[in-house]
Amino acid sequence: MTGQELLSPNRQPSRDGVLRAMSKVTEILPQTPLLPLEVDGTTIWCKAEMLQPIGAFKIRGAWHRLTDMTKVQRTKGVVGVSSGNHAQGVAWAANRLGISATIVMPSNAPQIKLQATRALGAKVVLYDRATESRDLIAARLIDESGGTLVHAFGDPWVIEGQGTAGIEINEQLKERGLGDPDQIVACCGGGGLSAGLSLACPDAEIIIVEPEGWDDIIRSLDAGKILSVQDVTHPTMCDALQTPQTYPINFEILQKRVSKGVTVSTQEVAAAMRLAFEKLHVVVEPGGAVALAAVLAGKVDVKPVTAITLSGGNVDRDTFVKMIA
Amino acid sequence: MTGQELLSPNRQPSRDGVLRAMSKVTEILPQTPLLPLEVDGTTIWCKAEMLQPIGAFKIRGAWHRLTDMTKVQRTKGVVGVSSGNHAQGVAWAANRLGISATIVMPSNAPQIKLQATRALGAKVVLYDRATESRDLIAARLIDESGGTLVHAFGDPWVIEGQGTAGIEINEQLKERGLGDPDQIVACCGGGGLSAGLSLACPDAEIIIVEPEGWDDIIRSLDAGKILSVQDVTHPTMCDALQTPQTYPINFEILQKRVSKGVTVSTQEVAAAMRLAFEKLHVVVEPGGAVALAAVLAGKVDVKPVTAITLSGGNVDRDTFVKMIA
Repeated sequence: MTGQELLSPNRQPSRDGVLRAMSKVTEILPQTPLLPLEVDGTTIWCKAEMLQPIGAFKIRGAWHRLTDMTKVQRTKGVVGVSSGNHAQGVAWAANRLGISATIVMPSNAPQIKLQATRALGAKVVLYDRATESRDLIAARLIDESGGTLVHAFGDPWVIEGQGTAGIEINEQLKERGLGDPDQIVACCGGGGLSAGLSLACPDAEIIIVEPEGWDDIIRSLDAGKILSVQDVTHPTMCDALQTPQTYPINFEILQKRVSKGVTVSTQEVAAAMRLAFEKLHVVVEPGGAVALAAVLAGKVDVKPVTAITLSGGNVDRDTFVKMIA
Repeated sequence: MTGQELLSPNRQPSRDGVLRAMSKVTEILPQTPLLPLEVDGTTIWCKAEMLQPIGAFKIRGAWHRLTDMTKVQRTKGVVGVSSGNHAQGVAWAANRLGISATIVMPSNAPQIKLQATRALGAKVVLYDRATESRDLIAARLIDESGGTLVHAFGDPWVIEGQGTAGIEINEQLKERGLGDPDQIVACCGGGGLSAGLSLACPDAEIIIVEPEGWDDIIRSLDAGKILSVQDVTHPTMCDALQTPQTYPINFEILQKRVSKGVTVSTQEVAAAMRLAFEKLHVVVEPGGAVALAAVLAGKVDVKPVTAITLSGGNVDRDTFVKMIA
């Protein structure tokens, strides 16, 4: 691939791209721990992404994307769309690189996410999840500013960047004297992380977990074409995973690599958050707990080397208290 | 020092001993992260010991102690006294090494600590904190079994083992391009961790933090002799730091090295637990949050390189919810 092609937003994400992202991520982000957790006598390995500086894995893709922007692009700023974690990832990277950032966020996003995004210096534009399209709002902002879109999942850099979590999982298992994971169970919203892990870990089975009612990717994989969520007003605690529909760039990878998809209920998510509190002593937000929830609920068979993502920890206190009570 | 002297319970703990402990700890425990936290524009470095397999730093000293036991000693088992974290450390190490463990624990210890200690295979003997002496009960158990006492803080191995947290802090700051810490702010109960850090980091100022009403070491340092807590019925949320009196082996080190001691209130501890929840996404128990509480309350001046211990995360759900509410 030429330098020009590497910078094309239409290029396909690749494992080489994940490795290139890894070399950049290593320079700036310390490795998050891979915490062992015993489940029914078997140890599963939990990638603790709530320990990232912004409290979620989204910082990986944002950093890979923004550091690849040209000088001219940087002067015009970035526009992101996000329910809150990608927002903070983009804001953090933009802040570090001196790039101005505008993020389109749902008005009902958790306060902790809205505040943190603003605290990182980003401009936040609110929209109504039920009645407005965040993509249309972002398109208008880009028309006005000439800025660069940093999509939350449908972007080759973002996919490659999220994949660095998989490279680290492989390295950390090796340090523990274990081989590559037999399977990785991933929290899935738009499919950025799942696609990234698919590229990063070609020998692992990829299992995706979506919250009940927001299982558009599972249904899409069954149907062999991209489908939308049936009811975007379906209530869920997993604000980070409320993506109405995936993008072709994600879907093409997931079609080849995902071996299973399962959904979890709010009660199952709450049980996972509680266990993470008690046994791992970490704060997991609802959307970041669905992979663990699926394992605990027995919806995923535990294999000898199972890795899961605990994707984020940005949850309002009231919600956390309610979930672990 | 000869091999015989190295194994004497009456020997003085040393920095060489900390380094020897480090080589053993590195083999079995992954490094806990050193999390950056911005406080009033300065970054402080938080040693996240709640991410240890038992949820607290106590595993370090217990591992150093038990791995140095002779074959004959191992057959007779160990006896520990602990409010809950040392209990789990001893139980974990004993379990790994196939040594039987009996732990004397207060009947009002957090349920999470009692359950976890039993789950690790240790026998738990309960006592009443207000009316019974745990040391006398332990002495009787040792008389009966011929087992080895593993004291929670007044033991050269335990002090050296806890010091390994300081060696890691130095290493991790170096990886970040920083020098050794100017100061380490440590949660202090009996003084095992503080003494260990004093040995491990001879160039850092050591600041100890005790909960209000349980400031026996601060008062002892002022008086130049070991004093007891004035009222052992004084209520505190910091169950891990309810030590009525330190031991000479700790006091001698602390007298030479501690530059300041401060106390914190329950409200200040709660504020620290809340901030750790929101910004670091980790669960800190009250006793593990006192160092952060002191910094946040402005009771410790933040220096360019300040490290603090977040010593543990074993807290019952109800208590946690009450503290962060």
